[in-house]
Amino acid sequence: MNTIIIDGKRTAERVRDKLRTAIEQLKQAGHIPGLAVVLVGENPASQVYVNSKVKACEELGIYSQKWSLPTETSQKELLELIDRLNHDDRIHGILVQSPPPPHIDEAAVVLRIDPRKDVDGFHPVNVAKLVMEDPSGFVPCTPMGCMELLKEYGIETQGKHAVIIGRSMIVGKPMAHLLMGKHANATVTVAHSRTTDLAGLCRTADILVAAVGRPGLVTAQYVKPGAVVLDVGINRVEDSTRPRGYRIVGDVDYAEVAPICRAITPVPGGVGPMTIAMLMANTVKACRAACGVG
Amino acid sequence: MNTIIIDGKRTAERVRDKLRTAIEQLKQAGHIPGLAVVLVGENPASQVYVNSKVKACEELGIYSQKWSLPTETSQKELLELIDRLNHDDRIHGILVQSPPPPHIDEAAVVLRIDPRKDVDGFHPVNVAKLVMEDPSGFVPCTPMGCMELLKEYGIETQGKHAVIIGRSMIVGKPMAHLLMGKHANATVTVAHSRTTDLAGLCRTADILVAAVGRPGLVTAQYVKPGAVVLDVGINRVEDSTRPRGYRIVGDVDYAEVAPICRAITPVPGGVGPMTIAMLMANTVKACRAACGVG
Repeated sequence: MNTIIIDGKRTAERVRDKLRTAIEQLKQAGHIPGLAVVLVGENPASQVYVNSKVKACEELGIYSQKWSLPTETSQKELLELIDRLNHDDRIHGILVQSPPPPHIDEAAVVLRIDPRKDVDGFHPVNVAKLVMEDPSGFVPCTPMGCMELLKEYGIETQGKHAVIIGRSMIVGKPMAHLLMGKHANATVTVAHSRTTDLAGLCRTADILVAAVGRPGLVTAQYVKPGAVVLDVGINRVEDSTRPRGYRIVGDVDYAEVAPICRAITPVPGGVGPMTIAMLMANTVKACRAACGVG
Repeated sequence: MNTIIIDGKRTAERVRDKLRTAIEQLKQAGHIPGLAVVLVGENPASQVYVNSKVKACEELGIYSQKWSLPTETSQKELLELIDRLNHDDRIHGILVQSPPPPHIDEAAVVLRIDPRKDVDGFHPVNVAKLVMEDPSGFVPCTPMGCMELLKEYGIETQGKHAVIIGRSMIVGKPMAHLLMGKHANATVTVAHSRTTDLAGLCRTADILVAAVGRPGLVTAQYVKPGAVVLDVGINRVEDSTRPRGYRIVGDVDYAEVAPICRAITPVPGGVGPMTIAMLMANTVKACRAACGVG
């Protein structure tokens, strides 16, 4: 089978190209989209993510603020910063990098972000808008990126059976709503750790989304020949042949699965690059809404 | 097969018995649960529903207010009434009977109800709480009643495949979240009008929930022998042999399906009676929360 390797880097670049035009128009009207990225603590992976987000802003001409707070920052101090950013007219999007240190109540922090600036799409107001198919809300970036990939590659969803492995608030559940909604019209199954005969269920999928965080879980026996496979997993596995001592793999056993499917996202280079592109898209959307621009 | 006929009337009575005890305890502590039911216009079916709800309150000793407003009531007048009820300490639950007349923006009305008094579970705050599995929210009454029936009849959900036909905000979507959540752990598929081979999909279900409003859609070929079938449909079909000229049927062809399944809810007498019982349960829950009673 001639498998299509879904190119997330190229698709993200196309998204950024469209955003550049939108940002240029906003600037001509006197508006500059702004994103505040807040990091509490020293988690090295979080630092990498935060820096990537700030860099993505710079490349597009989005104004950004990076707040690196010490691990011992109190809940109260963090909430005060959120309040300040909520009221800062230069800032249209706010995100607090997950996970925060254990003494921080992450749900309370998300709840404090003005839903109109919640570009991660984690605030309950935006959760409800997604479920209710209200397009004014913000959709979490990773599932939004998956939908964009399907669109870019002309992959029909209507009437297709989509199986999502994972029921998280960040990927599984929003992905289910995006796919079952009236714009996509897929028949959607959400599977998880308690699903019996996961392989057999997954083999019924026309579109399989793996978002469970288990390296190589999805082997060939999980995949119907000709299915489309989106691999959302980003897992570090030890690899002494690499300078860093590890490599990044997805939830899909790519070598086994790629030959039998119609299209697949590689890891890295598939869904990953889309996530930050969608964050930029949400920031531009927030700016347009705040400035009353169509 | 010895099919279990799931008795919604009896189960609703058991729910009411438990509520009577809870209400008695609240009264001894000086609290009386209160529900306000608002009806705009003359829809005869709505009048029947509203009267049933008020009657259910009376039977349990729940304080109730029935507001029957003329069809020509303006959006503004309705919102002002909601505001008044939001601030009325005797009222713990508010519901506006659906559907309102066409000039009323129902979403805006629901949004105006204090989420702590939204005993229908339609407010975005409660939608999000259900998705996020936050037990402080209110769950829509019909899917909540379905879950109660499964519990009452000892029907295991963990690892089972549940197929829900219908993706409405009132039944399909909340039912999906209740069944996929960590308390139920079912593998959940949401099917709808665009699903291809609906019969074949439904035949893979251990638990089949029909909530689509199409009389007799689910025939024997939709049902795996031994499955559990919950029929949420309440459809009027013409029947000249009945004094009223119609009879109420579900979405399931009961005569065909009942013999092959393990358990089934009849219509009427299955899911229907549970809906009002769950409304009463939500009203008591709202009262307990408002009064700070465990």
